[in-house]
Amino acid sequence: MSKYVIGVDYGTLSGRAVLVDAKTGREMASSVYEYPHGVMDECLPDGTPLGSDWALEHPQDYLDVLSHTIPDVLKKSGISADDVIGIGTDFTACTLIPVKNDGTPLCFLPEYEHEPHAYVKLWKHHAAQDKANKLNEIAAARGEKWLNNYGGKISSEWAIPKIWQVLDEKPEIYDAADKFIEAADWIIWQLCGRETRNSCTAGYKEIWNKTEGYPSKDFFAALDKRLENVVEDKLGTVITPLGSKAGEITEEAAALTGLKKGTAVAVGNVDAHVCVPAVGIDGPGKLLAIIGTSTCHILMGEEEKQVPGMCGVVADGVMPGYYGYEAGQSCVGDHFAWFIDNCLPKEYYDEAQKQGVNIHKYLRSKAEKQKPGESGLLALDWWNGNRSVLVDVDLTGMILGMTLRTKPEEIYRALIEATAFGTREIVENFRRNGVPVNEFYASGGISQKDPMTMQIYADVLGMPVKIAGSEQGPALGSAIFAAVAAGSEKGGWDDVFDAARTMGSIKNIVYEPIKENSEIYDKLFAEYETLQDYFGRGENDVMKRLKALKISQKNKS
Amino acid sequence: MSKYVIGVDYGTLSGRAVLVDAKTGREMASSVYEYPHGVMDECLPDGTPLGSDWALEHPQDYLDVLSHTIPDVLKKSGISADDVIGIGTDFTACTLIPVKNDGTPLCFLPEYEHEPHAYVKLWKHHAAQDKANKLNEIAAARGEKWLNNYGGKISSEWAIPKIWQVLDEKPEIYDAADKFIEAADWIIWQLCGRETRNSCTAGYKEIWNKTEGYPSKDFFAALDKRLENVVEDKLGTVITPLGSKAGEITEEAAALTGLKKGTAVAVGNVDAHVCVPAVGIDGPGKLLAIIGTSTCHILMGEEEKQVPGMCGVVADGVMPGYYGYEAGQSCVGDHFAWFIDNCLPKEYYDEAQKQGVNIHKYLRSKAEKQKPGESGLLALDWWNGNRSVLVDVDLTGMILGMTLRTKPEEIYRALIEATAFGTREIVENFRRNGVPVNEFYASGGISQKDPMTMQIYADVLGMPVKIAGSEQGPALGSAIFAAVAAGSEKGGWDDVFDAARTMGSIKNIVYEPIKENSEIYDKLFAEYETLQDYFGRGENDVMKRLKALKISQKNKS
Repeated sequence: MSKYVIGVDYGTLSGRAVLVDAKTGREMASSVYEYPHGVMDECLPDGTPLGSDWALEHPQDYLDVLSHTIPDVLKKSGISADDVIGIGTDFTACTLIPVKNDGTPLCFLPEYEHEPHAYVKLWKHHAAQDKANKLNEIAAARGEKWLNNYGGKISSEWAIPKIWQVLDEKPEIYDAADKFIEAADWIIWQLCGRETRNSCTAGYKEIWNKTEGYPSKDFFAALDKRLENVVEDKLGTVITPLGSKAGEITEEAAALTGLKKGTAVAVGNVDAHVCVPAVGIDGPGKLLAIIGTSTCHILMGEEEKQVPGMCGVVADGVMPGYYGYEAGQSCVGDHFAWFIDNCLPKEYYDEAQKQGVNIHKYLRSKAEKQKPGESGLLALDWWNGNRSVLVDVDLTGMILGMTLRTKPEEIYRALIEATAFGTREIVENFRRNGVPVNEFYASGGISQKDPMTMQIYADVLGMPVKIAGSEQGPALGSAIFAAVAAGSEKGGWDDVFDAARTMGSIKNIVYEPIKENSEIYDKLFAEYETLQDYFGRGENDVMKRLKALKISQKNKS
Repeated sequence: MSKYVIGVDYGTLSGRAVLVDAKTGREMASSVYEYPHGVMDECLPDGTPLGSDWALEHPQDYLDVLSHTIPDVLKKSGISADDVIGIGTDFTACTLIPVKNDGTPLCFLPEYEHEPHAYVKLWKHHAAQDKANKLNEIAAARGEKWLNNYGGKISSEWAIPKIWQVLDEKPEIYDAADKFIEAADWIIWQLCGRETRNSCTAGYKEIWNKTEGYPSKDFFAALDKRLENVVEDKLGTVITPLGSKAGEITEEAAALTGLKKGTAVAVGNVDAHVCVPAVGIDGPGKLLAIIGTSTCHILMGEEEKQVPGMCGVVADGVMPGYYGYEAGQSCVGDHFAWFIDNCLPKEYYDEAQKQGVNIHKYLRSKAEKQKPGESGLLALDWWNGNRSVLVDVDLTGMILGMTLRTKPEEIYRALIEATAFGTREIVENFRRNGVPVNEFYASGGISQKDPMTMQIYADVLGMPVKIAGSEQGPALGSAIFAAVAAGSEKGGWDDVFDAARTMGSIKNIVYEPIKENSEIYDKLFAEYETLQDYFGRGENDVMKRLKALKISQKNKS
């Protein structure tokens, strides 16, 4: 009798559950539920207005995902809850909830429902930028060593700036919150009735280190005297490695989901990192790029190296027993969409319509005819700043080589190539700093839909590009961790690496680098690196000066 | 009783005559005639195919312009030929005709009518590039001093490369041609029956210098032994300054044009240079920019300075008694047209159509709302190489500062600003090299139609921009020289400077620089110069390497 597991992926706008075979990983059913409150970036449900750069969510939506999608996948698949042996989840991060000691979100309490700071601060809440700046300044001045574990900079999206913002703007909410917890861990608490904190969010978003722990009390006091004991008071010092079982479905959770009480629950996880086992990655040196509007790169290594410009390195941060490395590109699919929205002439739309193909496909049909280097164009893919390896939001885009004969499809291809060069820079940066990268995997929308781009990546990297077998990477990854939480005795797995090798999958098609193209791209990449260093490492800070001027001019009127 | 003069402007595709009052410059009538043969760049009238980069014209078309437009302006204005005291003409250059000793073009002779080399080589005939390259190499190796009078480079468009091409490819035509003459001088010959050679084309296009004469026999022999005596054999050593009378209308020319025999004929001139008196410029330090698909800059100075990157300096090259300086930008109106053709999204066309305005105007309505620096963009205007001050056809375009919020109208404006920065660079380069520029005049299509661009030029230059009063700048300029050829006794002028002051005109509107904008543009121009030097003066030759790679990739298949 087959056994099954469920993975639930909490995205920015919706949650998605998949029910898969606990041995093979085969998908039996899936279900999506959109958050009724969506992203609240203008006002609360009661109309209370929010400041600029705010982004909140409502935790009730997360519970509603469970009560809708899990019964739905059970029904669709016709599989009995008796045969479901585990559940795993993954979440956006750092997505942070202030809660009481029993896990109740403050915003559930009538006295706080009109208070913005009582709600979930979504990963893309950017209103704590001033706190992040101050934190980075103080940490750098004090020579805090952990800073280099994060490429030298803590993001305003992470936990400490967000918590500090609450303290600074609404100390009474800070006091009323017994804890701040990642939504990734809060949802697990709701399922198994037990608070856990996973090593992935703790490491990447809360500045926790397996050997060193959190930053010192001294450091927190240097930020704000009232933050001195923030770790003990508001966070938690017990961190559970990924691949562990958090607990079992409670009676209440059974009533909510239709799962059986006692079903294994995996510790929480993050939507990007959880994709790694879903493509069958089972060890170090295999880089996964999740390529969508932006790109996230996840890699495991056997040693802890401080790699400049990475997003972070965390012990047990991806799979247990290895150091998990993360890097990123801020602008990938967004880049191509910008071009199509802002730079594509009318006749291209007309012709695409005439041919009955979508505009991306039409443009690709023209771009894929070009040989590498044939357009004479070269771009820096910084339309949304540079996350890795320069970690600089103030950099902007550049393209050169245009002539009066340059065609739109040539510019389009140059932008795609630029993102491939950015990826190669990340790969080479890991290697230069002692973290091997031997294989390259791609998941995310672009990996599934755009063969031309994947071939360009293979040619630019000079490596085969393997493509995720499932379009539901995060949910499948969560299901794999669910199977490990259940264990082999129940019909799952004891080892996440074994589970990944069998349940994870890649497509049959592998994009092999074409030697002739790679030789040309080696030359173009050398030019890319020269320009990257010139514009991005202080030789000519023209982009920053233009940006500063732009802001001061915009503010004038 | 008023007296009148006629100016005839020979362009690339048509000739245009204007009849103006010889004292006031007031336009009484104008007439255009399109060349029946147009530009021949694929084959001769008999179907004989032409090579790549060839561009020929038929001299009969030039005569037809006279026989059609002059009777037409007389008729339209109702003015008697008795009251027309002079005629002047201007031409594209170097536009070169092989002729017999009596002025008959070789292509008029039946034995040569099937021979491409027997026809007029139009200014944009580019098939002598290899000759120009070799000439420049040899001249540089020999340390020829005159090379610096042309910014260090002779163009393939000029006379010696074109003549050399004939000699090399068809020595029998070279031998059959008693002379090679500029179309500017040939048409004067047809009018007054007397060969003259004007100082403007001789200086800018035939490497003649008022003090030094032509390059030495040694130099020509170094190019090709057979060219040793090219000056004496095929050109002419008597050069007539601009502002002189070439002769008088012959009986044949009277029959052709309807003008009276004995009417004064001015020496030939060039379409750009002749515009200077038409805006009333009467001395040194006043730069005229003729802004169209490309821009030509004309300036007079009191001394001969070797300005790096200019197109040329010629004694009496613009108006008699002064050194005439020329510089240029290869890509101006063409640049904006490229953007509109290749980069403008559908909704912009749709909206322009809805509003019933043309697309340039619609885009301008959006671009003119921006403050300087507000877009954060900066471009190098090298989509067609750089004529001045870098003299480098292998440079290509660049733009930086793009973000995901960058709009098309911001890019459009950045391209306009880039051409203004290029103009400022030319102005400052003259100043740095001892040639004062105190006033700035603009003529050409863009100066008449695009107030936003003219205001940007004023702000970038930090100088008032004065706009040509007539849209027929070259023809009016030719008419002014005609009035001087006629002289004051006949009702014209004795001095071209007096004539220019009275007959030339500018519009009432002067674009004054707005101090606040100029301060911002000073900063942006500093950034432009830094990038110009980085990409254009050898610090990073990425554009050239990309272009070489592009050519080698294109040639692969």
